[in-house]
Amino acid sequence: MNASFDLDADGRRRVVIEGVRPEVDCGRFPAKRVVGERVTVEATIFADGHDRLAARLLFRKADQADWREAPMAPVGNDRWRGEFEVRELGRYRYTIAAWIDRFESWRHDLARRRDEQDIERALAVGAELVEQAAQRATGAEREALREHAARLRGGEPLAARVALAEGPLLGALMSAHPDRSLESVYDRELEVVADRVRARFSAWYEFFPRSVVEGEGAPHGTLRTAAARLPYIAEMGFDVVYLPPIHPIGRTHRKGANNALTAGPDDPGSPWAIGSEAGGHKAIHPALGTIEDFRAFRDRAAELGLEVALDLAFQCSPDHPYVREHPEWFRHFPDGSIQYAENPPKKYQDIYPLDFESAAWRDLWLELSSVVEHWIAEGVKIFRVDNPHTKPFAFWEWLIETTKARHPEVLFLSEAFSRPAVMHRLAKLGFTQSYTYFTWRNTKRELVEYFTELSDPRCRDYFRPNLWPNTPDILHEYLQFGGRPAFAVRAVLAATLAASYGIYGPAFELIEREPREPGSEEYRDSEKYQVRRWTLSNPASLKPLLTRLNRIRRENEALQSDDNLEFLPVDNEQLIAYSKRTADFGNIVLVVVNLDPHHTQSGYVEVPIDEWHIGATKPYQVHDLLSDARFLWHGRRNYVALDPQRSPAHVFRLRRHVGTEKDFDYFM
Amino acid sequence: MNASFDLDADGRRRVVIEGVRPEVDCGRFPAKRVVGERVTVEATIFADGHDRLAARLLFRKADQADWREAPMAPVGNDRWRGEFEVRELGRYRYTIAAWIDRFESWRHDLARRRDEQDIERALAVGAELVEQAAQRATGAEREALREHAARLRGGEPLAARVALAEGPLLGALMSAHPDRSLESVYDRELEVVADRVRARFSAWYEFFPRSVVEGEGAPHGTLRTAAARLPYIAEMGFDVVYLPPIHPIGRTHRKGANNALTAGPDDPGSPWAIGSEAGGHKAIHPALGTIEDFRAFRDRAAELGLEVALDLAFQCSPDHPYVREHPEWFRHFPDGSIQYAENPPKKYQDIYPLDFESAAWRDLWLELSSVVEHWIAEGVKIFRVDNPHTKPFAFWEWLIETTKARHPEVLFLSEAFSRPAVMHRLAKLGFTQSYTYFTWRNTKRELVEYFTELSDPRCRDYFRPNLWPNTPDILHEYLQFGGRPAFAVRAVLAATLAASYGIYGPAFELIEREPREPGSEEYRDSEKYQVRRWTLSNPASLKPLLTRLNRIRRENEALQSDDNLEFLPVDNEQLIAYSKRTADFGNIVLVVVNLDPHHTQSGYVEVPIDEWHIGATKPYQVHDLLSDARFLWHGRRNYVALDPQRSPAHVFRLRRHVGTEKDFDYFM
Repeated sequence: MNASFDLDADGRRRVVIEGVRPEVDCGRFPAKRVVGERVTVEATIFADGHDRLAARLLFRKADQADWREAPMAPVGNDRWRGEFEVRELGRYRYTIAAWIDRFESWRHDLARRRDEQDIERALAVGAELVEQAAQRATGAEREALREHAARLRGGEPLAARVALAEGPLLGALMSAHPDRSLESVYDRELEVVADRVRARFSAWYEFFPRSVVEGEGAPHGTLRTAAARLPYIAEMGFDVVYLPPIHPIGRTHRKGANNALTAGPDDPGSPWAIGSEAGGHKAIHPALGTIEDFRAFRDRAAELGLEVALDLAFQCSPDHPYVREHPEWFRHFPDGSIQYAENPPKKYQDIYPLDFESAAWRDLWLELSSVVEHWIAEGVKIFRVDNPHTKPFAFWEWLIETTKARHPEVLFLSEAFSRPAVMHRLAKLGFTQSYTYFTWRNTKRELVEYFTELSDPRCRDYFRPNLWPNTPDILHEYLQFGGRPAFAVRAVLAATLAASYGIYGPAFELIEREPREPGSEEYRDSEKYQVRRWTLSNPASLKPLLTRLNRIRRENEALQSDDNLEFLPVDNEQLIAYSKRTADFGNIVLVVVNLDPHHTQSGYVEVPIDEWHIGATKPYQVHDLLSDARFLWHGRRNYVALDPQRSPAHVFRLRRHVGTEKDFDYFM
Repeated sequence: MNASFDLDADGRRRVVIEGVRPEVDCGRFPAKRVVGERVTVEATIFADGHDRLAARLLFRKADQADWREAPMAPVGNDRWRGEFEVRELGRYRYTIAAWIDRFESWRHDLARRRDEQDIERALAVGAELVEQAAQRATGAEREALREHAARLRGGEPLAARVALAEGPLLGALMSAHPDRSLESVYDRELEVVADRVRARFSAWYEFFPRSVVEGEGAPHGTLRTAAARLPYIAEMGFDVVYLPPIHPIGRTHRKGANNALTAGPDDPGSPWAIGSEAGGHKAIHPALGTIEDFRAFRDRAAELGLEVALDLAFQCSPDHPYVREHPEWFRHFPDGSIQYAENPPKKYQDIYPLDFESAAWRDLWLELSSVVEHWIAEGVKIFRVDNPHTKPFAFWEWLIETTKARHPEVLFLSEAFSRPAVMHRLAKLGFTQSYTYFTWRNTKRELVEYFTELSDPRCRDYFRPNLWPNTPDILHEYLQFGGRPAFAVRAVLAATLAASYGIYGPAFELIEREPREPGSEEYRDSEKYQVRRWTLSNPASLKPLLTRLNRIRRENEALQSDDNLEFLPVDNEQLIAYSKRTADFGNIVLVVVNLDPHHTQSGYVEVPIDEWHIGATKPYQVHDLLSDARFLWHGRRNYVALDPQRSPAHVFRLRRHVGTEKDFDYFM
């Protein structure tokens, strides 16, 4: 900090390296990538004067000692760029070294010299540089450099010696043996976490196992019955199946149906009121079954290509074993009783928050870490974290980093619906994916503004959005009033605006849309407090749409990352249009959605044909992957009309014209 | 770096502090202010959960041990703001501390509690907090807190105890004795350099002393004759008089008039070819006089309210004593001769650059520092640094920081016309003011774009522009072709777009505009290579305009800082309009300039009457401080027409309507 120059250092290091990207909060946090991706690193690199520079990107796995190097090249305005691939899970470190390239500076000047005496003198200077490089080289290269130095010094005609100096062979030899004795190294080592691909691209399905009830008479589903629901979920093409807490549910102050203050004897309680005499966060709710049932569920999911995500809700019912065994982990009233959760005047007497200011905080942290380890040992690699913004940031940073150091394949989804600074901090400190404000962004302006913000590269470096049209806590009024078309709109938006999305089903696909009371975002007869029996065979089900969307996502690489989202102008405020494309233009998806669930809307979409290398005169085909319809478009402005009752959206894949009027091919 | 949480630290520190402003390059460089200014510090401060927070700005002179504290208050969206005043020259440090305010959190909840039992229980909790505060307090405050704790616990009716809890007395007592045991401190200490006011607000006049020739026959002016020019400069209202190098000029390879390769016997040479048998950078050119003459010049300037700025041009003529005494400070050809400056195919054989990669670089740095100290001892407090971008950044950072540690009043102006990254780095590392691209920004679009960039608060924190319409090196074609109106335009822009500006005179006020050859930016018969005799009495002289502009600058605080520059829309591309105003709206200056030096241009200026609290219906007066004309304006759009032959600009001061149609007063 405040590191002005010290005469004890070497003042001859002239190269400055600054403005490095990616760099999250001055390097305080790692950037995020997935295995197989290239990390493109840019920096502003310059020196005093007019010398040519050379720069290298240094990188290594964090646990390795030696740097590897990748070349960096100038891209204009003193910016330089290099890249490396993250091939393994875990943390990588990178930094930059740069130095004055005296040989290339000399060659640059040599090419502009005009008079013979001047050139002769310059060749003598060059011969010295080559001789010095020979001393850094060994074997045949040393000999070759020595020979070049000797030839530059004399004997041959001037023109021949200049040609030798300017030739590629000498350039390659010199570049392989640069003088890096005065190189500058960037003053920070930066980090990037390499996750598995699912961190970037995932489709989540949340459901309550207890609602998968076998037969009319059974009161409560189990992990066994729930396993029978898995093929249905897999058919739709989801890849993560997320279960609300499966742990024992407390009895004390248990909530009844529709959040009633007192529960009837048969009310199953909220799964988030964790802990009873049957155990706490490492136990399975007896009504759901046993650990063997969980393992069977997990294995069945795996057979179907589904991965199980569990809920980490670090809070306790008054009956949780921690309350007896570790009263020091809770805050107490002066009368000695434990403080329940509250948000005055509301009281949540069925929930005891853990006290992270407890003097025994270290034991608490270690215990919570052991909960995570317990489920990892049971094959769980994805955790959806409940309300992380009500526990300390330092705790999460420690928990996620230490967990991922042992299990770099583990992913954490942050369920923080909070202020922007809080949500972003959680993403920076390590959460793999984050819930977003998408659930409340319904108009075109809201969506464009919010996703433009999330698309900022500085945000994308650490924040991976996971979009949820609904959750057990949130039934937005857009869904309540918009009916089936509104659900379809939100599904298309969620599945295509971001590479990760999720739904809470079967409420979602069955268009469940009754609020607990007018103005509420809570569901009536919410599954949080009661068992629900769903009729999956409802013909209005959005299962076919979801199935189609998930297939489109799998088949179109452009939809599998959050790069390159671009909004396109449409002259109708009810229509939103955007594109996602791969960097090589090989896959371009253009989505148009009618946000009005009640009326047909039409307008002209502006297609960036120049940027996409589509000629202004040739037609191109847009293939609606939802309806399979194909349209021939021309030029920049093209007409769309969407009837919400039929289909509220187009998800076009672009095909360019390659021959006659009828020949179209997908873009490169 | 990469500081994930360590279990050895205290995990109970829950408050996060990030996004601090000002903070230049993650705190690597200090921000800049002048004495008497307030440093407003903002940060994003938040914690998990919903507790109330408290935050303090910690600040101190860098050489003092103890922090002082200023309050910080929330300003929305988790941003907090505080400020401190920099009262003395030198470096200040600042950082931020924040903590959970348990008492205010408790009061916030208390106010929302409804049932008596709940309130009773809460009062017991509050009494504990107050009791704990009593233990941190002493004397009467301790007693008062104890008494409050006892009264909260019981005895009085509930309503009275709640009133006590919510009262301002207890709030003040508790706020004076917070529990900061778990406070978070921002992980960087940041710095701000406090300069004297001239660093922010200055008007420079550059001239060649040798051109102030006494009588027809004299070949060369001296510092004595040049002193006679000072009243003329002071009359115009400038405050810094800057002299090109006044040191002995080399003979070897001396350049002749118009940069001729060989000089005649009477050619005086370029003042930037420093060093002869008469001495180097600490000596005075014998033709200019003696050190006594310099002292007399300096004292005469001071009498007139002018400060002398000297040129620091760290390069040598072949005759400089360093060449003999310290050949190790220069780079040598293989034949042993010293390398002259070159930019192939151009050679500058009259200049030997210093070799900052010399093994003896430390001695070189110390010697150059002693040059600066020498002139400081002679009363020079301002240095204009020639081509700083051709010497290492680390050298300048060290030189400026160590010099200012001893002499915090000293100012350095960076004459770097280079790429943006280079110019900004020089400003960040310590240069007080910087030359800019203003000299080449002549169209409305260029000016708006460039000054919008310089107005970015992150840039303003370290970069203080100093605008030069001309220099001895640069006669822009806009001046060459635009004639007197163009000079007037550029004078008005320079004097009002930034708080610091300068001209190279008398060339500027006498409308000197002949290039060396067509297409050149060099002056014909440039004073760099020859003595010029100027006729100051030329009736076309811009002296009256410059005099008026400098007075306007002194009388209008809005023009004395680079805050609050705002461009205003005008519906004519040849007209540019902008305003500068003080934060309290007490001084609003509105400038309209006709950039077309050949034709009258007219249009409508849009005045932000809402932002400036001018009613849409009431008239307001704009008083042209250049012409003294007054116009009555109404509403947002107002007409202007400017004839470049009469006056190419309005510099309006706004006067608001305060009573009848004829009563106007300056704002506030």
